[in-house]
Amino acid sequence: MAQTVKLAVVRGDGIGPEVVDEALKVLHAVLPDDLVVQETAFSLGATRYLETGDILSDADTAALAEHDAILLGAVGGDPRDPRLAGGIIERGLLLKLRFAFDHYVNLRPTTVYSSVASPLADPGTVDFVVVREGTEGPYVGNGGAIRVGTPHEIATEVSLNTAHGVERVVRYAFDLASRRPRKHLTLVHKSNVLVHAGALWQRTVAAVAEEHPDVTVDYQHVDAVTIHMVREPGRFDVIVTDNLFGDIITDLAGAISGGIGLAASGNINPDGTFPSMFEPVHGSAPDIAGQQVADPTAAVLSVALLLDHLGRADLASAVTQAVEADLASRGTTPRSTAEVGDAIAAAVAARTTTA
Amino acid sequence: MAQTVKLAVVRGDGIGPEVVDEALKVLHAVLPDDLVVQETAFSLGATRYLETGDILSDADTAALAEHDAILLGAVGGDPRDPRLAGGIIERGLLLKLRFAFDHYVNLRPTTVYSSVASPLADPGTVDFVVVREGTEGPYVGNGGAIRVGTPHEIATEVSLNTAHGVERVVRYAFDLASRRPRKHLTLVHKSNVLVHAGALWQRTVAAVAEEHPDVTVDYQHVDAVTIHMVREPGRFDVIVTDNLFGDIITDLAGAISGGIGLAASGNINPDGTFPSMFEPVHGSAPDIAGQQVADPTAAVLSVALLLDHLGRADLASAVTQAVEADLASRGTTPRSTAEVGDAIAAAVAARTTTA
Ligand SMILES: CC(C)[C@H](C(=O)O)[C@@H](O)C(=O)O
Ligand SMILES: CC(C)[C@H](C(=O)O)[C@@H](O)C(=O)O
Repeated sequence: MAQTVKLAVVRGDGIGPEVVDEALKVLHAVLPDDLVVQETAFSLGATRYLETGDILSDADTAALAEHDAILLGAVGGDPRDPRLAGGIIERGLLLKLRFAFDHYVNLRPTTVYSSVASPLADPGTVDFVVVREGTEGPYVGNGGAIRVGTPHEIATEVSLNTAHGVERVVRYAFDLASRRPRKHLTLVHKSNVLVHAGALWQRTVAAVAEEHPDVTVDYQHVDAVTIHMVREPGRFDVIVTDNLFGDIITDLAGAISGGIGLAASGNINPDGTFPSMFEPVHGSAPDIAGQQVADPTAAVLSVALLLDHLGRADLASAVTQAVEADLASRGTTPRSTAEVGDAIAAAVAARTTTA
Repeated sequence: MAQTVKLAVVRGDGIGPEVVDEALKVLHAVLPDDLVVQETAFSLGATRYLETGDILSDADTAALAEHDAILLGAVGGDPRDPRLAGGIIERGLLLKLRFAFDHYVNLRPTTVYSSVASPLADPGTVDFVVVREGTEGPYVGNGGAIRVGTPHEIATEVSLNTAHGVERVVRYAFDLASRRPRKHLTLVHKSNVLVHAGALWQRTVAAVAEEHPDVTVDYQHVDAVTIHMVREPGRFDVIVTDNLFGDIITDLAGAISGGIGLAASGNINPDGTFPSMFEPVHGSAPDIAGQQVADPTAAVLSVALLLDHLGRADLASAVTQAVEADLASRGTTPRSTAEVGDAIAAAVAARTTTA
């Protein structure tokens, strides 16, 4: 019997629609007869907000919750538009969904493909995954300000960290590490300064490590991690870290590998209570929107993460291998967004037929 | 009449003593007759703490306060020593001094020297300064935990940001930018998530910018900055940022340039109420201590920052030029810590004599 998956599709703003179109093209090329994907389009993002004044209504959230997974392109409008100031779309839509759907694992793999130019002179073999906590830390929106606009203004930001929240993401990271060949886990924090949260993370990692004698563990401060990621990125396997540190180091990870145009992510609710959400790490890039120049690869690789999440590692790896083949065959002639999607879809179809 | 400067010298732990010896060697080589430096040695750091149980007493602080400036090598012992766990020396000594002496400017310049191999394939011309706030943000030690060690543990970390604290460091950064050829300032924050602190920083930068029509200004999120620092570091001139973001991006800046062995820093109290403190960004590296293999260049460049702070830009540039000459003449034969110091001191002396 065929598995039927209800997929909510948020094409979003800027280059979002273009890259999602290609991601769906590849998804359809890889789907076997026993997996049926039913898509529902959701019009969400800056464009819809500017038209209607709504960012994400309770009805939107409820409708999204009816789905098994969400594929999101990119959201956010022109950063200079005062009506969109202060990250209102990012917080009201992206972060709101991550919190509403308890996406406590933000999964961000990094591979340096030999065929893609890295800004590093000698990146070596790089293949690591950042498991970024997605529902706590400085992202909770806890903080405030008094005497705003006066010389006596005080603004606070509070990072909230719970044993519950830390333990579940740490467990996920250990499970992942123990399934990978190198079985190594690095905790990244700043425990010499953020002592309370740092101690909670360190104690939790130490406790869960006892259940995973197969996994080797180390700890690095977030500042030092930036050095290693530039000087010796091959040393990392699984990194588990806080929401904010994960945000920062995954952009760096994108930069040292093929660039943010290749970085995919999954916002995952491992319990399956809520739909998980898959999205490229890049933003909506309004300056190049609608020109068919955006690289859809990060969106395509997000589909691979989606397939993996649906339990179809076989299909996920068909997609990543097609991407690798496409990257290896890229010439110097620029291709349109659709041409890249076509090429990857064709490579997927060829593999699937001959397999 | 000669200017007399009282310099407190904290050689510290690990490679600290070795690199400070070379830094002082270079300092003495560059000193003209009209500048007299009186040194007082302070025995502070992990070694002294393990011997006496004292990290930094009120008497130590009071004695340090009697000086015009502090030169510090590195502090911190073996990270695996349980008696030194949790960053007790870093917080009890380094951070305590930064707060006690109101070092609200943490100045960290980055240069990519053409003669030094960068891990970047094509770094280009890189010459920027990070002005990191040093007395606020998530570094204030405000936070706590309840139900520690239970499944109900909650740990918080609070970032405190004040108009007073932000404005003074932003003013310093604008003054610095307007004295540099490119006159460009980049504010780095994460204002789309940390909205209260982010808004305070953004409003302050916008306000001070009005007084500096000569300085161009932009804003970047801390995650995006890591990408630009790897892909196009030459775009930066002066970066002003929060204490934690500054910690992270200056390690990255060190990594993309000649490495952390070249990164110098000044913890500056621009008001002159308290002594400013100059230190290499690197740590005490206990694993290579006492072997004369540490590169003293970061400590030497910290002396250049000290001289600049003392109003002797001429001497500062004599030191940096001697460092550049030394870097350019480095062969493949490893030199001892003292040999590097000797070479830079000789280059300084040669310049000073012929000038
Ligand atoms: C847009 C922003 C709120 C978001 C984040 O900070 O998480 C983004 O940078 C990301 O990494 O997905
Ligand atoms: C040692 C540590 C407390 C310190 C910091 O976080 O500021 C260090 O990383 C630095 O950058 O000087």
